[in-house]
Amino acid sequence: MTLAPSKLALVPFVSVDNMMRLVHHHGLDAMLRMLADAIEEDFLRWEAFDKTPRVASHSEVGVIELMPTSDGELYGFKYVNGHPKNTAEGLQTVTAFGLLADVHSGYPVLLSEMTLLTALRTAAMSALAAKHLAPEGATTMAMIGNGAQSEFQCRAFQAICGVDTVRLYDTDPAATRKCAANLEGSGLTVISCTTPEDAVTGAQIITTCTADKQNATVLTDNMVGAGVHINAIGGDCPGKTELHSDILHRSDIFVEFPPQTRVEGEIQALAEDHPVIELHEVFAGKTPGRRDARQITLFDSVGFAIEDFSALRCIHKAIKGTDYYIDLDMLADPDDPRDLYGMLARAKS
Amino acid sequence: MTLAPSKLALVPFVSVDNMMRLVHHHGLDAMLRMLADAIEEDFLRWEAFDKTPRVASHSEVGVIELMPTSDGELYGFKYVNGHPKNTAEGLQTVTAFGLLADVHSGYPVLLSEMTLLTALRTAAMSALAAKHLAPEGATTMAMIGNGAQSEFQCRAFQAICGVDTVRLYDTDPAATRKCAANLEGSGLTVISCTTPEDAVTGAQIITTCTADKQNATVLTDNMVGAGVHINAIGGDCPGKTELHSDILHRSDIFVEFPPQTRVEGEIQALAEDHPVIELHEVFAGKTPGRRDARQITLFDSVGFAIEDFSALRCIHKAIKGTDYYIDLDMLADPDDPRDLYGMLARAKS
Repeated sequence: MTLAPSKLALVPFVSVDNMMRLVHHHGLDAMLRMLADAIEEDFLRWEAFDKTPRVASHSEVGVIELMPTSDGELYGFKYVNGHPKNTAEGLQTVTAFGLLADVHSGYPVLLSEMTLLTALRTAAMSALAAKHLAPEGATTMAMIGNGAQSEFQCRAFQAICGVDTVRLYDTDPAATRKCAANLEGSGLTVISCTTPEDAVTGAQIITTCTADKQNATVLTDNMVGAGVHINAIGGDCPGKTELHSDILHRSDIFVEFPPQTRVEGEIQALAEDHPVIELHEVFAGKTPGRRDARQITLFDSVGFAIEDFSALRCIHKAIKGTDYYIDLDMLADPDDPRDLYGMLARAKS
Repeated sequence: MTLAPSKLALVPFVSVDNMMRLVHHHGLDAMLRMLADAIEEDFLRWEAFDKTPRVASHSEVGVIELMPTSDGELYGFKYVNGHPKNTAEGLQTVTAFGLLADVHSGYPVLLSEMTLLTALRTAAMSALAAKHLAPEGATTMAMIGNGAQSEFQCRAFQAICGVDTVRLYDTDPAATRKCAANLEGSGLTVISCTTPEDAVTGAQIITTCTADKQNATVLTDNMVGAGVHINAIGGDCPGKTELHSDILHRSDIFVEFPPQTRVEGEIQALAEDHPVIELHEVFAGKTPGRRDARQITLFDSVGFAIEDFSALRCIHKAIKGTDYYIDLDMLADPDDPRDLYGMLARAKS
């Protein structure tokens, strides 16, 4: 005989399949906007969060990281791996899942896939930053690097920033073909380019999202004109950057959390005290974002734990009243908390 | 249309219910011995493990911790909360779950409840230590503190150390009654005592496992005679100890991982350089355990990440060929790893 566990001992789980259903239920545009709103809300209460550094376990072929944070009410963490060699083996370079828990009881309240959710929140974060930084009336974005994140970036800039044209470039034309095919019917005008120089032509926003592990120069200085907003996604771990340092020196650089970005972002190429602007201060109106039409703004994106927390919080709300989760019997729930053994013994019969 | 995810993208999940079935499938005694063997195996290859400190998020009412470790082949972590006030609210003080992942791919290979599993591995670890430290022919154990862990301790010492008699004591007689009732039919002779002095009479092994948060004196010096093995479970966080420091000075103290035990264990009451013996050295035969019949040995147990890793590894093996798990669709698995967006789009129709 096994008694059904109480509601509190059950943890809602959002599978990949249910995450996809949930996205389609709300619509991708709405979901990206919900995520951007959740991130902005959390960035506006920046001081409420404990900003623990991520805990990384490195091996020769990759890294597994835990990224915890808490706002004092909810606690969240993301498990994420990074294994560049996985793609060649037909696996994802990055997979992730996350958990949200009630700080008061310590009980988990949500377990969710986060491979897809991270792709969504990364795009939402980029578009949210661009909303504050891109030049007025920007409608064309160069999308350099047409891998797994590229379509999400294009759709988020369309949904949140009013971009209507994307100019795609990748060193692998097959990636560009895939990206262009996926964006068919999205309402975006898609222009496939054969050189990065062509891609940036006429673009007010340049997004770089390449997968090179080593320091690469995806953008050279002469490719970046006055007034452009650069959304640099791919420089996101030590030893991995995408931009020529001359561009960094001409730009006002906006970051999520300086101690992390200085180690992982484009600015690892700069002096440790090179001035950067924290995005939460821009969102809060404490520091100006874009000041004039000729300024080059650069979002040096690395992905921060609070964004994952916001994403989990958003999903926790979004599944309410839907069928897009199952309850997992993940927590022992004896009638008498001191009687774990009795619960086990009674399960035998 | 949704395509079924490939086997690699599915993560076996062991629920509380399935963990209970699994324990009964193998038998509690066998399970405790399997866990002790797994822990001993892993302690014997101590140097293979990275010993990351646990990552704690403290609040006014409790703590949530992540305890990661890796042996270079597998990576594991445990999520565990500690909320002493939970019991009064009908909740578990401690709940836990854990994950095992393949270091080579970064893909999770097991998600498991760990509330029950932690109770089992804690008892297995205690009995394993006692196998090396308790006096020859020990058959009677005093069990001071008759909460959720107490029956597991008694059963592990019975299964692994040949204990046939337990003498129970708790400040709350109802806890002792519960413990005694649960041990009926176990084959153990159970003697319920009304004072701790009575409980330790004639016992060669004294296990203390009380839940006091503050420094308490569960055992005073005069209660501990020559030749006894003390298994101190309850002193397991800063500010929480159970033994009078005089006992510590008369004992040879054995620990899991000194940097952690000095902060969390009984020895937080001692000088930072007070000599302690690492259990993995005893298991490996590099350092003697018990040297003579009059020596007082003390296992200052705090619970270490490797034990959780061993427990998860043991469960990962134990579920093979059984039905005691379900597969969770936790990892996105697009046919083309670069085509996450395409996977999402195709899920719509």
